[in-house]
Amino acid sequence: MTLGTVAILGPGLIGGSLALALAEKGLTKRLSIYARSSRALDEIRLAGVSAELTGNPSEAVSEADVVILCVPVEAMPALVHEFRDALKPTALVTDVGSVKGSVVRDIEPLLDGRANWIGSHPMAGSEQGGFAAARADLFDGAPVILTPTQHTTREARRRAEQFWAALGANLHVLSPEKHDEMIAAISHIPHLLAAVLVNHAVTHGKLELAAGGFRDTTRVASGSAELWTEILMANADAVATQVDHLIAQLRSIEVALKNPDKPVAKTHLLAMLQAAKDGRAQLPARRPSKKG
Amino acid sequence: MTLGTVAILGPGLIGGSLALALAEKGLTKRLSIYARSSRALDEIRLAGVSAELTGNPSEAVSEADVVILCVPVEAMPALVHEFRDALKPTALVTDVGSVKGSVVRDIEPLLDGRANWIGSHPMAGSEQGGFAAARADLFDGAPVILTPTQHTTREARRRAEQFWAALGANLHVLSPEKHDEMIAAISHIPHLLAAVLVNHAVTHGKLELAAGGFRDTTRVASGSAELWTEILMANADAVATQVDHLIAQLRSIEVALKNPDKPVAKTHLLAMLQAAKDGRAQLPARRPSKKG
Repeated sequence: MTLGTVAILGPGLIGGSLALALAEKGLTKRLSIYARSSRALDEIRLAGVSAELTGNPSEAVSEADVVILCVPVEAMPALVHEFRDALKPTALVTDVGSVKGSVVRDIEPLLDGRANWIGSHPMAGSEQGGFAAARADLFDGAPVILTPTQHTTREARRRAEQFWAALGANLHVLSPEKHDEMIAAISHIPHLLAAVLVNHAVTHGKLELAAGGFRDTTRVASGSAELWTEILMANADAVATQVDHLIAQLRSIEVALKNPDKPVAKTHLLAMLQAAKDGRAQLPARRPSKKG
Repeated sequence: MTLGTVAILGPGLIGGSLALALAEKGLTKRLSIYARSSRALDEIRLAGVSAELTGNPSEAVSEADVVILCVPVEAMPALVHEFRDALKPTALVTDVGSVKGSVVRDIEPLLDGRANWIGSHPMAGSEQGGFAAARADLFDGAPVILTPTQHTTREARRRAEQFWAALGANLHVLSPEKHDEMIAAISHIPHLLAAVLVNHAVTHGKLELAAGGFRDTTRVASGSAELWTEILMANADAVATQVDHLIAQLRSIEVALKNPDKPVAKTHLLAMLQAAKDGRAQLPARRPSKKG
């Protein structure tokens, strides 16, 4: 099976891992990679990836059957605007951005009638790390969410499913809005709270006393502050709404803690902690990972 | 060097690890272990630990130079009341409870003039798991906090320092109140938030989409709901006060997210995330651990 000619725009952790995975599985007829900086292109060249490398996005996409946008979410619309006249009308264009509402809203009209567009979000690795952290097995068993709208063609959806399935991903389908809400709950809000916890502990605690639990609970707070500011801002509505829900939960816990002699206080805490324990038992098994 | 005759009351994860560590390092002249249930005593016997086993706490402490309370915090006062008449007046009595204000307040008057009492809190492992999870190296390099008060004798402090140092621990000294405040910040609040995050994700997200970050952030939420309800209730004042601080932090983030077009919104998020990233870089290196 071949996916034809594939263009990867932005060879960071995700784009670079796509290039390595496509090459390793022999899935493409040709691979072209666009990066804005020549330093990034040199890095790919040195790694020996067999691909046509270019600093011109139109050149990268002009022969492509599949185009994958792997640049930061806020850079996508301008990039699409730059290359869209060079697209083959039969091309599939998708992305790997971690927010979908704004991306789909911005890109869909830019590509309308010019290509088959659908949004994708592979839940793999972190957006950190650049090409140096790329690995060919990043998508094996990883959840990938497709976010079709009423304007998405059948062809776009079918070929995006084929693309990610060939890389070993587990496919899910959500509307862009539902995607953003769910990802806020399982990724953006946890990230925010991890950061709040570290700052809280620095102010009220003593980090040298922290045990392994604290280290794990706050691991993601070591991610790039710039990148996560962009992500949170891009999904600001869903995150803000959910912060409000969290505050309501914390208030109910605070009330229980301030009334320790009322039997309902203990019952409330116990039910909350037991629900969390039971909920966490539903998590899928951990996939192999290189992360520390 | 010998610590003399040591009595361990409650051979769960911490008490059991103490027994294994003392035996392995050859630190005691004699070791006695008390457990309320005969099933627990059978477990120790089967493990081949060389100790006198008893279901009678007075018998366990009657010859002891060092007595370590390893039962749950809420069970300690009644237990001390039960055995205190059998203590040698020169004995050191300490505990391993994860809250200190209430423990010290309850136990200090019970032992006044009858033994050398000081509170201890080894920050090692979790309180879960029982004897089956015990390991001889649990205290190697672990922080142990001693919590003297104005009534603590020099002898109590000196001998508690000697005891934990012999086990390889890193000693810290805090008042019981300061201990509870700091442990709330680095242990109880993170635990609470991990549980809140799981429940939030079950309501607003889809756990099958969760990546490794979510798994790590919420790991501690798989702990025993009963045990953590007791811990949170025992430290309710400090935890409630800190939940209030957290809510204030979350409100400021919510305001930023609701005003994404104001430059100050982005600045606020970026500063918060950068402070967390920098703060987390100050964490001590991870100690070897068997935990998954």
